[in-house]
Amino acid sequence: MLYTEIPTQRPVTPLLDSIDHPQQLRLLAQSQLAQVADELRQFILYAAGQSGGHFGANLGVIELTVALHYAFNTPHDRLIWDVGHQAYPHKALTGRREQLTTIRAKDGLAAFPAREESEFDTFGVGHSSTAISAGLGMALASRYQQQQREVVAIIGDGAMTAGMAFEAMNDAVAHQADLMVILNDNDMSISCSTGGFAKHLAALWQRGESVHIDAAGEAYIQPHPEWNYTSRLHCAATDAADNLFKAIGFDYFGPFDGHDVDQLVNVFQALKKRKGPRLIHIYTKKGKGFAPAEADQIKYHAISKINSSASAAAAPKYSDVFGQWLSDEAAQDSRLLAITPAMCEGSGMVQFAKQYPERFFDVAIAEQHAVTLAAGMACEGLKPVVAIYSTFLQRGYDQLIHDVALQNLDVTFGIDRAGLVGEDGPTHAGAYDYAYMRTVPNMVIMAPKDENECRQMLHTAYHYPGPAAVRYPRGNGVGVEIQQQLNLMEIGQAEIVARFNEQSDEQIAILAFGSRVYPAIEAAQAFAARHDIAVQVVNMRFVKPLDEAMIERLAENTQLFVTVEEHAVMGGAGSAVSEYLAKAQLVKPIIHLGLDDSFMQQATHSQMLQQAGLDAAGIEQAMTQAWNKLTESVSS
Amino acid sequence: MLYTEIPTQRPVTPLLDSIDHPQQLRLLAQSQLAQVADELRQFILYAAGQSGGHFGANLGVIELTVALHYAFNTPHDRLIWDVGHQAYPHKALTGRREQLTTIRAKDGLAAFPAREESEFDTFGVGHSSTAISAGLGMALASRYQQQQREVVAIIGDGAMTAGMAFEAMNDAVAHQADLMVILNDNDMSISCSTGGFAKHLAALWQRGESVHIDAAGEAYIQPHPEWNYTSRLHCAATDAADNLFKAIGFDYFGPFDGHDVDQLVNVFQALKKRKGPRLIHIYTKKGKGFAPAEADQIKYHAISKINSSASAAAAPKYSDVFGQWLSDEAAQDSRLLAITPAMCEGSGMVQFAKQYPERFFDVAIAEQHAVTLAAGMACEGLKPVVAIYSTFLQRGYDQLIHDVALQNLDVTFGIDRAGLVGEDGPTHAGAYDYAYMRTVPNMVIMAPKDENECRQMLHTAYHYPGPAAVRYPRGNGVGVEIQQQLNLMEIGQAEIVARFNEQSDEQIAILAFGSRVYPAIEAAQAFAARHDIAVQVVNMRFVKPLDEAMIERLAENTQLFVTVEEHAVMGGAGSAVSEYLAKAQLVKPIIHLGLDDSFMQQATHSQMLQQAGLDAAGIEQAMTQAWNKLTESVSS
Repeated sequence: MLYTEIPTQRPVTPLLDSIDHPQQLRLLAQSQLAQVADELRQFILYAAGQSGGHFGANLGVIELTVALHYAFNTPHDRLIWDVGHQAYPHKALTGRREQLTTIRAKDGLAAFPAREESEFDTFGVGHSSTAISAGLGMALASRYQQQQREVVAIIGDGAMTAGMAFEAMNDAVAHQADLMVILNDNDMSISCSTGGFAKHLAALWQRGESVHIDAAGEAYIQPHPEWNYTSRLHCAATDAADNLFKAIGFDYFGPFDGHDVDQLVNVFQALKKRKGPRLIHIYTKKGKGFAPAEADQIKYHAISKINSSASAAAAPKYSDVFGQWLSDEAAQDSRLLAITPAMCEGSGMVQFAKQYPERFFDVAIAEQHAVTLAAGMACEGLKPVVAIYSTFLQRGYDQLIHDVALQNLDVTFGIDRAGLVGEDGPTHAGAYDYAYMRTVPNMVIMAPKDENECRQMLHTAYHYPGPAAVRYPRGNGVGVEIQQQLNLMEIGQAEIVARFNEQSDEQIAILAFGSRVYPAIEAAQAFAARHDIAVQVVNMRFVKPLDEAMIERLAENTQLFVTVEEHAVMGGAGSAVSEYLAKAQLVKPIIHLGLDDSFMQQATHSQMLQQAGLDAAGIEQAMTQAWNKLTESVSS
Repeated sequence: MLYTEIPTQRPVTPLLDSIDHPQQLRLLAQSQLAQVADELRQFILYAAGQSGGHFGANLGVIELTVALHYAFNTPHDRLIWDVGHQAYPHKALTGRREQLTTIRAKDGLAAFPAREESEFDTFGVGHSSTAISAGLGMALASRYQQQQREVVAIIGDGAMTAGMAFEAMNDAVAHQADLMVILNDNDMSISCSTGGFAKHLAALWQRGESVHIDAAGEAYIQPHPEWNYTSRLHCAATDAADNLFKAIGFDYFGPFDGHDVDQLVNVFQALKKRKGPRLIHIYTKKGKGFAPAEADQIKYHAISKINSSASAAAAPKYSDVFGQWLSDEAAQDSRLLAITPAMCEGSGMVQFAKQYPERFFDVAIAEQHAVTLAAGMACEGLKPVVAIYSTFLQRGYDQLIHDVALQNLDVTFGIDRAGLVGEDGPTHAGAYDYAYMRTVPNMVIMAPKDENECRQMLHTAYHYPGPAAVRYPRGNGVGVEIQQQLNLMEIGQAEIVARFNEQSDEQIAILAFGSRVYPAIEAAQAFAARHDIAVQVVNMRFVKPLDEAMIERLAENTQLFVTVEEHAVMGGAGSAVSEYLAKAQLVKPIIHLGLDDSFMQQATHSQMLQQAGLDAAGIEQAMTQAWNKLTESVSS
């Protein structure tokens, strides 16, 4: 069935409702699975409409999920979903159907498979391209433990471009592991990436035919369904005679129609009897069965809750501020090139990519390569800008150190989604970038208090003749006016943004970083209204180099320093301040506010900030406690 | 010529001596190049004997290097050497011949290509598998700048297994970049890795024939030289009909004999006229032309200076302590599996690999995969141990966070080469692991003061039911007795290892981490002999969790804390101590001793420690200065 609307009422799904465990699914006749798939599709449409979240990928794997749980003995057999944003049908079939509307909400189901949530979630995911490695680990463990167990890793064509998938395939062949990899080829990852691998998949499709396996396990060739064949044609194919998977040593089967649940079951049942590393190439369509999503796959990658009041957000997203700056800077400087690892839309680069196609490089999901590619460009006197999420830069960390910073190359990093990220949960938190970057020599690291400062900092980082990063949060700015003109900021210069109770002899200085500057001002104001103590609030701007002169000046009249940042306390920006105090032998009371030493579960961004004590109220409370303790200890 | 001895006298190399710039090489007749290669080989044998260092790889690329500088217009054309330990002939031909005996020494030539050393060193390397990305960056830059420039990346078969090489090839095809990749296939990386890729290369060889290109650019088939053909046969080949490089969209040429300098020139001159991404597959032999090295390639991967007095090092290497512990623990616990990313020998695992082949996993150069493979194994209740160098764990950082720590999986990391590494220089320094690991929740991080503690810490980390790392230095232990018995240490418990001048009212506490404990004791003793001040030295043992109770106890009677570590001060272990003081609102003078915020150039390990002020004398000096400043400020 092709649906055209997201149902607002719970659809009637009698067959699906009878399945609280895949064992119940496996009791059905194979002929009933199409009906299960249809009901599941309706239900996913409804549930995703209630919860918001990933959408297209889930509709694309309905038949695959039903077939997997039917053909394999889950959870004894292991299914590992790569990335995991396509796991809603899997969650629905494994006892979590009625909770699915809570997905991504605080205390609800996780956005991705999570080991603590269900025994069916064999591996926690969120970042792409880990499934073959994890599955290989499980397969080798099973062999060593002499367990009879099927291990199946399901990975998309986009995720396959990341090097670690290749590393894992290479190693699976070395061990001749009994591992089944399902390549869920839907002709796109999140972004419109292309490359040698995509061209190769096009070649495997271009024959215009597909493989079919009947219930007896016999294979025969059948024509491709029309839509899929044409969809791959935008990629120029490589020489179809060579098969990459076979070259690397996998047995290759396919391509198969990934929406024919009956034949998928036949395929899995036939091929699970084989040994060694096997790759099964199926083609599916993102958004399958929902007409608007089939027509616009990028728009329907994820959706908002259908009943959510579309808040007329006056302030632009930080991503868009980045994108606008990128275009503006590019107009002024022809040396600017921009690189994204498959996050063109997410990073706000769509406009730039249209304006400057010859200066735009979407390198696919390949963070390691993205960073070193930039280093190579910088060697030739160009000025590359790498747009990357904080959590994904973790993938390019060695390259940041070894290829960029060590050579002091002129690469600018626009680090998006830094800090807490709300509903995506702990896998996507950007909570460690200050720590892992500031320990690296030659790095300049900035964090803006608002969207205008973000723009000016990007400009400043760009003109700094070495590696420089600006890290900014997910979501919208605070609503300040954005100056069109680009002005250079002084490297390493902080600014005092607020002073309260200046007449007092006693003083607290709040050194605030990035997104915490405004809440710190609010906290300071509230504190100052209740205590006759001077409070100065400093927008530190630079995590590296720190404004040491500012700290030294403040230290003269300050009884308590409070640092605050949307980042782990351990190794964070506050810690940098303490390091400077130690270096200068300035012995001053100081407390560090930031994220504590735990992974924070999903909630809204504001819920998380409140929980972490990093909203204005939390900051005020912490400084009050610290001040009280300090004055008690002095008076006692 | 096949040589059998390393000359101790500078060989007579008249033709080579005439080449101070490749332009002079290019003035020679092509027929003279074999003579240049022979002289260069003799010279490299001599120079490497004088300096020590990488050996086999350099002898293997003599003809290749001569042919490249002859066929290409360097430095206008760009050569990018992957890893770079094969760049001695390149350095010799590009004006650095007579300095080559200083390689790896303080103020001598760098161990690897380095941009600041020569315009011919287009990209600084050290870690593997970056050359295609960097070369692609240069090729795309040249296109954008409308420069006529050839870009050639030279990469070994071992380095090709790392995922970022695959990412870069995928992207090169996307851009149809004019990039030549030379696959220098010598049938091994450092270790005896194998896998799908190695099998595939075996298939490309197994036809028993090779390609030849004559001076007119015409190609014809000729038989393989015997030795190379047989050398690949230990790998079972994949289906020879499929070519991985062609599948991904590269033009593939080869395999060619990489020791025939004349034909290499023909090949390069013929193929440089083509456009698009091209892969040229050549086969070479490590140690070529030196009989002992051809016979034992692993032993001759690198050599010591031939005149160096082989110091009868009584203390075992930390790597060997790790290897012995691994075997001992494995004997007691069948759940132990060990993983190395192609560092079997370097990590001291040869004995374990022989004893427990079914529990030993060399995953090739694939750090990302290594970490997630371990995570997968841990999910099945096994207890994987990942042996990895500090600098290479940077490659698996995201996997450490996202796949291991976030799921709190029971993976043990044996982190070798932590701290300064001497002659290998800044690319291999393990100076950032405390910072990048301790910011990650759930991690336990230890650093031993000596080889016996290293063994007991590995045992402790192994039995800790979550992610735990022991980081230990390069080189030999301090010479203490190693207890056979394995004893668990209390997690997070430090020990006081020395007390001086206990009767004094004033006290300094040195909180020392890992390798700096013994120098700290020495420094404390020297300081105490000169001042009537009590000094306590604490072996902190745990960077995370810190022994907070110890710090709190000491704070009562301590006027100055001194932290000392072989790690960057920024974000390091001392910084963790300051964080705790801040958290507990303990306001105490503290100074942090460690590596300053710069990349440290090569020298011997002890020269580097002295330079960093981290030997006993440096520590004593720093604490004296800090104490004087402290008492001055108190008295003033």
